[in-house]
Amino acid sequence: MAFSQRQRLAAEFLGTAFLLATVVGSGIMAERLAGGNVAVALLGNTIPTGAILFVLITMLGPISGAHFNPAVTFAFLIRGEIASREAGFFVVAQVAGGLAGAAAAHFMFELPIVQVSAHFRTGPAQWGSEAIATFGLVATILATVRFRPTAVPAAVGLYITAAYWFTASTSFANPAVTVARSFTDTFSGIAPEHMPAFILAQFVGAGLAVPLFGWLLSEEKQQEFAEEPAE
Amino acid sequence: MAFSQRQRLAAEFLGTAFLLATVVGSGIMAERLAGGNVAVALLGNTIPTGAILFVLITMLGPISGAHFNPAVTFAFLIRGEIASREAGFFVVAQVAGGLAGAAAAHFMFELPIVQVSAHFRTGPAQWGSEAIATFGLVATILATVRFRPTAVPAAVGLYITAAYWFTASTSFANPAVTVARSFTDTFSGIAPEHMPAFILAQFVGAGLAVPLFGWLLSEEKQQEFAEEPAE
Amino acid sequence: MAFSQRQRLAAEFLGTAFLLATVVGSGIMAERLAGGNVAVALLGNTIPTGAILFVLITMLGPISGAHFNPAVTFAFLIRGEIASREAGFFVVAQVAGGLAGAAAAHFMFELPIVQVSAHFRTGPAQWGSEAIATFGLVATILATVRFRPTAVPAAVGLYITAAYWFTASTSFANPAVTVARSFTDTFSGIAPEHMPAFILAQFVGAGLAVPLFGWLLSEEKQQEFAEEPAE
Amino acid sequence: MAFSQRQRLAAEFLGTAFLLATVVGSGIMAERLAGGNVAVALLGNTIPTGAILFVLITMLGPISGAHFNPAVTFAFLIRGEIASREAGFFVVAQVAGGLAGAAAAHFMFELPIVQVSAHFRTGPAQWGSEAIATFGLVATILATVRFRPTAVPAAVGLYITAAYWFTASTSFANPAVTVARSFTDTFSGIAPEHMPAFILAQFVGAGLAVPLFGWLLSEEKQQEFAEEPAE
Repeated sequence: MAFSQRQRLAAEFLGTAFLLATVVGSGIMAERLAGGNVAVALLGNTIPTGAILFVLITMLGPISGAHFNPAVTFAFLIRGEIASREAGFFVVAQVAGGLAGAAAAHFMFELPIVQVSAHFRTGPAQWGSEAIATFGLVATILATVRFRPTAVPAAVGLYITAAYWFTASTSFANPAVTVARSFTDTFSGIAPEHMPAFILAQFVGAGLAVPLFGWLLSEEKQQEFAEEPAE
Repeated sequence: MAFSQRQRLAAEFLGTAFLLATVVGSGIMAERLAGGNVAVALLGNTIPTGAILFVLITMLGPISGAHFNPAVTFAFLIRGEIASREAGFFVVAQVAGGLAGAAAAHFMFELPIVQVSAHFRTGPAQWGSEAIATFGLVATILATVRFRPTAVPAAVGLYITAAYWFTASTSFANPAVTVARSFTDTFSGIAPEHMPAFILAQFVGAGLAVPLFGWLLSEEKQQEFAEEPAE
Repeated sequence: MAFSQRQRLAAEFLGTAFLLATVVGSGIMAERLAGGNVAVALLGNTIPTGAILFVLITMLGPISGAHFNPAVTFAFLIRGEIASREAGFFVVAQVAGGLAGAAAAHFMFELPIVQVSAHFRTGPAQWGSEAIATFGLVATILATVRFRPTAVPAAVGLYITAAYWFTASTSFANPAVTVARSFTDTFSGIAPEHMPAFILAQFVGAGLAVPLFGWLLSEEKQQEFAEEPAE
Repeated sequence: MAFSQRQRLAAEFLGTAFLLATVVGSGIMAERLAGGNVAVALLGNTIPTGAILFVLITMLGPISGAHFNPAVTFAFLIRGEIASREAGFFVVAQVAGGLAGAAAAHFMFELPIVQVSAHFRTGPAQWGSEAIATFGLVATILATVRFRPTAVPAAVGLYITAAYWFTASTSFANPAVTVARSFTDTFSGIAPEHMPAFILAQFVGAGLAVPLFGWLLSEEKQQEFAEEPAE
C-alpha cells in the first residue's frame, strides 16, 4: 500500500477541515458583505465550496480517496471497497477535521471558537432534500469513478455547486459537515436538535444510490441480442 | 452492447429528472432569495444548470449517450445513429424523467407537486431564440463529439450557461424540459399554451444544425490543391 | 488539407456570429434584469462570454483555428502561419459574422435590427486598456498553443473573463467585435467615432505580443551553462 | 535547460504583473460598479483573479514554474528545488512585476499611478488568515504537482477563488502581491504599516506546509502489512 493509514487519516482530517473552513468561512464572509441579498450571499458560499472541493479531491484523492464524508465512506463500505475498521477511523478523522475547520473559520472571523447553531432546518421537505442530495452525490462519485476517474474532482465540485441551489436544504449531503455546522451559529449553521434527522436522511440517500447505481453501471452481455460485444 | 436498453432508458430518465430538478429547484431558490434582482436570480439559476449538465453527461454519457433531450435524440435519428424505436423510448423516458424532476423540486420546496405555469413566453422573438438556442446546442454536440469527445460535458454545460443569457427565452432548447416546465408555476415555468410553438422551434433548430454541421464537419480531400493529406 | 477554405470561412463566420450574439445578447439581458446594479450586469455579460468562447474554440478550432478576431489573424500573419490572402478572407468572414451575430441578438430581444451606438469609450486610458487586453490575449494564445494546445479553449475563455474586469474598457480586444459593437446601441456598444482608435490599439497590442512572446517561447541551448538538455 | 534565466525572470515579471493588474484592476472595476454591495464587488474581484491564475500558470509554467509568489519560491527553496541565487532573482522579478501590474491598473482606470493604501488590515485574525491561506496554497501546489501536474493551473486558480472568501483577509497569500497592494489606495489595498506582518504570516504558512506535506506525500513501503506494492 502506497500510503500509510496515518497518512490516509491525516488526509481525511485535513481535507474535511479545509472543506468546513470554506463552507463556514465563506458563509460568514458572504453574509457579512451581501447587504441582505441572500442570493448573493449564497453565490458567495457556493462558488468557494465548489472550488475547494475540486482542489481538495485533486490533492488528497490519491492518498485517501478523498471521502471527507461519512456517507461516502458508508457507500464504499457497503460495496466492500473499504474495511469496516478503516471506515470507522475515517469517520472519526472526518468529524474531527470538520470541527477543526469550523473552529478555524471562527478564529479567522473573530467569532467565539465554540458556538451552537440556532438555525432551524427541519421537516419532510428538508429531509427529502438531504436524501436526494446525498443520493445524487454518491451516484456522481460511483459513476465518475467508473467511467472517468480524472473527472471526479470537477464532477463532485460541480455537483455540490448545483445541489446548493436545487435542494431546499442547500445540500449538506455529508454527516461530518452536518455535525460541524451544528457548532457554528452563522449563515451555514443547523440547530443540533435537527442534526440527527439530517444525518439519517443522508445515509438513506447514500444507501439507495449504492444498489441502484450498482445495477446501472454493471455491463453485461445482453441475452436477447448478443450481436455486439462490450465496447 | 455494453449496457441494456433498460439501463439506457433508466439513464435517460434519471439524467433528465436531475436536470429538471436543478432547473426548477434552483429557479425557485434563486427567485426566493434574490430580493427582486432578477439578474441575480438568473445567475443562481444558470450556474447550477451548467454545473449539473457537466456532472450528468460525465456520469451517464457512457451508458445512454446522455441526450436528456428529444431534440438531440431527433438529431441522432436523422443522422442514422439511433434506431427509431429506441429513439421513441428515449423520448418517453426523457419526458417522464423531466416531469418527475419538476415534481421532486416542488416537493423539496414545499410547493404543490402538480402545477400549471401561467408564465407567458410567446412571439417570434421567443421562437427565434429557441430555434437559435437549439441549433447551437446540437451544433455544439456534433462538433465536440467529433473533435474532442471528452470535452462534451464541459461544452454542453458551458453552452447552456451562455445561452441562458444570450437568448430572450433563456434557452429551453429541449422539448422534454419545455413540457416539464409547463408543469411548474415558478421562475422557470412556461404556460402550456405556449409550449407547442417552443417545441416546434426547437425541432426546427435541431433539424437545421444536422445538415449544416454535417457539411461543416466533413473532411474531404480538396480537389483544387490536394497537396496536404487529412490531419 | 483536411477542411476546405469554404468550411474554414464558414467556421470563422459562424463562430464570430455566436460570439457577438452572446456578447450583445447577454449584455441586453443582463442590463434589463440587473435593476441598475452594473456589477451584476457585467457578471451576467462576462460569464456567458467566457463560456461561449470555450465552446466555440472547442467546436471550430480544428476547422479554422477559431480566430474569430482580426487581431489574432494578424498575429498569425506576422508569424507566417497564415497566407495573406487567406487572412484577408478570414477578416471579411469575421466582420460579417460579427454583424450577423449582433443583428441576431437584436432580433431575439425585439430591438431594431440595425442600430448605431452612442456609448462613449475614448481617451488614452481606454486605448491603453485595449492595447494591454489584446497583448494579453495574443500572448495567451501563442503560449498555450505552444505548451498545451488542448487548453486553448479554457485559457482564452478565462482570459477574457478576467479581462472584462481588469481593463477599464471591458476588453473588446477584437476588431471584428469592435465593429459589430458599434452597431448596437445597448450595454455593450461603442460609438462608431471611437471605433478606429480602439481597433488601432488592438493591432498595436497584438503586434507587440508577437515578437515578445516569440522570444519568450523560444527554447535554446544556453551558452553559459549547457549542462542540461531541453526538457 | 530549455529556457534561459532571462526568459524565466521575464516570465515571473510578466506573470506577476498580469496577476496584480487583475487583482487591482478588477477590484477597482468591481467596487465602482457594485453600488455598495461589497459581496457583489468581491465576486467581481474573485472570478477574474481565479481565471487569470489558470491562464498565467498554463502559459508561463513551462518557462519558469509560474511561481509569481515569493512564498512559493521560498517553499521550493526549502525543498532544494531552486538555487538560492535564482530564488533571489525570482523574488526581485515578482515584486517588480507586481508593482508594474498595479501601476498599469491605475493607468487603465485613470487613477494616480503611484498611491499608498490607507486600508487597515491587521490583528491576529488577519495574520492567522494569511498563514492558513498560504499554508493551503503551498499544500495545493505541492500535492498537485506530485499527483497531477496538468491540474496545477486549475487547482491554484480555484484554491484562490475559495480562499478569497474563506479567510477574513481575502487571502493575499503572496508577499509580492502584498507589497504591490500596499501601493494602491483602492478596493484591494493594504496600508504599508500592516504589510510586514502579513508577509511574515505568509512565510510562516508556507514554511509549515513544506514539512507537513513532505511527510504526507511520501510514499513508503509499510512495515506492518507490506503485501501491496506502491501503486
